[in-house]
Amino acid sequence: MSTSTIALAIEKQMVLENGVQQVELLNGVEDSYGGIILNMEEPMESEAFVYLLRASISQWKQQGKRGVWIKLPIQLVNLVEPSVKEGFRYHHAEPDYIMLVNWIGNSTNTIPENASHRVGIGAFVTNDQREVLVVQENNGTFKGKGVWKFPTGVVNEGEDICMAAIREVKEETGIDTEFVEILAFRQSHKSFFTKSDLFFVCMLRPLSFDIQKQETEIEAAQWMSINEYAAQPFIQKHNGFSSVANVCLAKLEKDYAGFSRIPTTTASGKTSYVYFNSRDLSKL
Amino acid sequence: MSTSTIALAIEKQMVLENGVQQVELLNGVEDSYGGIILNMEEPMESEAFVYLLRASISQWKQQGKRGVWIKLPIQLVNLVEPSVKEGFRYHHAEPDYIMLVNWIGNSTNTIPENASHRVGIGAFVTNDQREVLVVQENNGTFKGKGVWKFPTGVVNEGEDICMAAIREVKEETGIDTEFVEILAFRQSHKSFFTKSDLFFVCMLRPLSFDIQKQETEIEAAQWMSINEYAAQPFIQKHNGFSSVANVCLAKLEKDYAGFSRIPTTTASGKTSYVYFNSRDLSKL
Repeated sequence: MSTSTIALAIEKQMVLENGVQQVELLNGVEDSYGGIILNMEEPMESEAFVYLLRASISQWKQQGKRGVWIKLPIQLVNLVEPSVKEGFRYHHAEPDYIMLVNWIGNSTNTIPENASHRVGIGAFVTNDQREVLVVQENNGTFKGKGVWKFPTGVVNEGEDICMAAIREVKEETGIDTEFVEILAFRQSHKSFFTKSDLFFVCMLRPLSFDIQKQETEIEAAQWMSINEYAAQPFIQKHNGFSSVANVCLAKLEKDYAGFSRIPTTTASGKTSYVYFNSRDLSKL
Repeated sequence: MSTSTIALAIEKQMVLENGVQQVELLNGVEDSYGGIILNMEEPMESEAFVYLLRASISQWKQQGKRGVWIKLPIQLVNLVEPSVKEGFRYHHAEPDYIMLVNWIGNSTNTIPENASHRVGIGAFVTNDQREVLVVQENNGTFKGKGVWKFPTGVVNEGEDICMAAIREVKEETGIDTEFVEILAFRQSHKSFFTKSDLFFVCMLRPLSFDIQKQETEIEAAQWMSINEYAAQPFIQKHNGFSSVANVCLAKLEKDYAGFSRIPTTTASGKTSYVYFNSRDLSKL
């Protein structure tokens, strides 16, 4: 980039105010924690970006700002290296953007943690003949092992656990269901690089019974006796699986209460589900 | 970087084998899904990296490989832009590295999702006088509002929910506790940029009672009548909070069973906790 191009880029950011030429700062939005969020959207040469970033940070420091966030869409990948060289660290990334952050305050760094968990579901779907809906997978840990397992899947960002269970059962087996309750959950670590994992066992009531298995991920799907399911050597061998199987059997045979859901409104006005033992709560 | 430097960098990666000079590929590790993980550790000029990456991908395509992962420590930020220009997208990032991925297979892209959830805890700690341990925060949504709330905090990557609750109570109030059970949980969305949030209400039994509040984040801490806590206008106004308060009251006054924990072993041999209604499971 030539010197004149840099000058032009910077000039665009300058305004004449009361006869004094001032540097216009990068256009940040204040957050509620004394920080600034820069949503970079327009292409910019790295030299001009560094010039403006330094001027902006200098002013934000004077204003007592603390955390400075830079969100760079992947198209602006040229600004990642200059940001790091100016002292920013990565915070998180999604396929189409990266978020960097720098703590410029004098107080203790209180930058919040990145998302730490993936969330998965396993669906326990039974019919009136004490049969459970099970699948064999084409890929991953269980490929070719002949293990019959519950339909499972990943809960998407922004997706309710109860809805993810219904969606996965439909995708893998074609069966329509409705949510009943969460019977148990498991937390495990280092399941995916360094990330932790939360796995919710959801009981669903089937609304249809004819299986149409998915072609790409599912090798086979069937209704199987619950006792036969629980007796599989693989299930018996791993107490993570056998304890879940025991909970499912208890749900069928005993008076087992899991967590059902109610919709609530958060302090910021969003709808979210709270899951709890509603049977015990309604006791007199 | 001069042409000769590039040549030198590339030459280092070449070996003479059976009289034929061959390009040594970037050193990838195979994963169990037909993919390759490149852990870049040594500094490399971007031109040499691109040369070797192209040669490597060409060979991996012939081998039928599918997902190619590149893990770049932040010191190798110079390789982020070249990776993106070669077709890689961001997958996730932590403060000290970024992970990029590219699907080179012909089949459907099955690259797993990034971590989607942050996990938090709220700690319900009561003494024998039906008092609950509450705090007022210095920062965030509740700052200056005079709301007394449960100690809360974020569960770290790799940390068990039950342990995070004990840690946060100790940090914020100095009180030692032991885990009893999870009474309820809430899932909400877009809590932190686009990420979702899982918040677990943990009941803990206090092992000490003298409060030593943390200075930086906590404005005040006290033991407070549970009824007074639940009667706060803020709690009553938001059913997300009042429903949790009702569950806690039910735990004290009724025979409410939450989810307790048992340690289990996963298929890959790791220890992880399964949480379920152990009272109902043990019924005859």
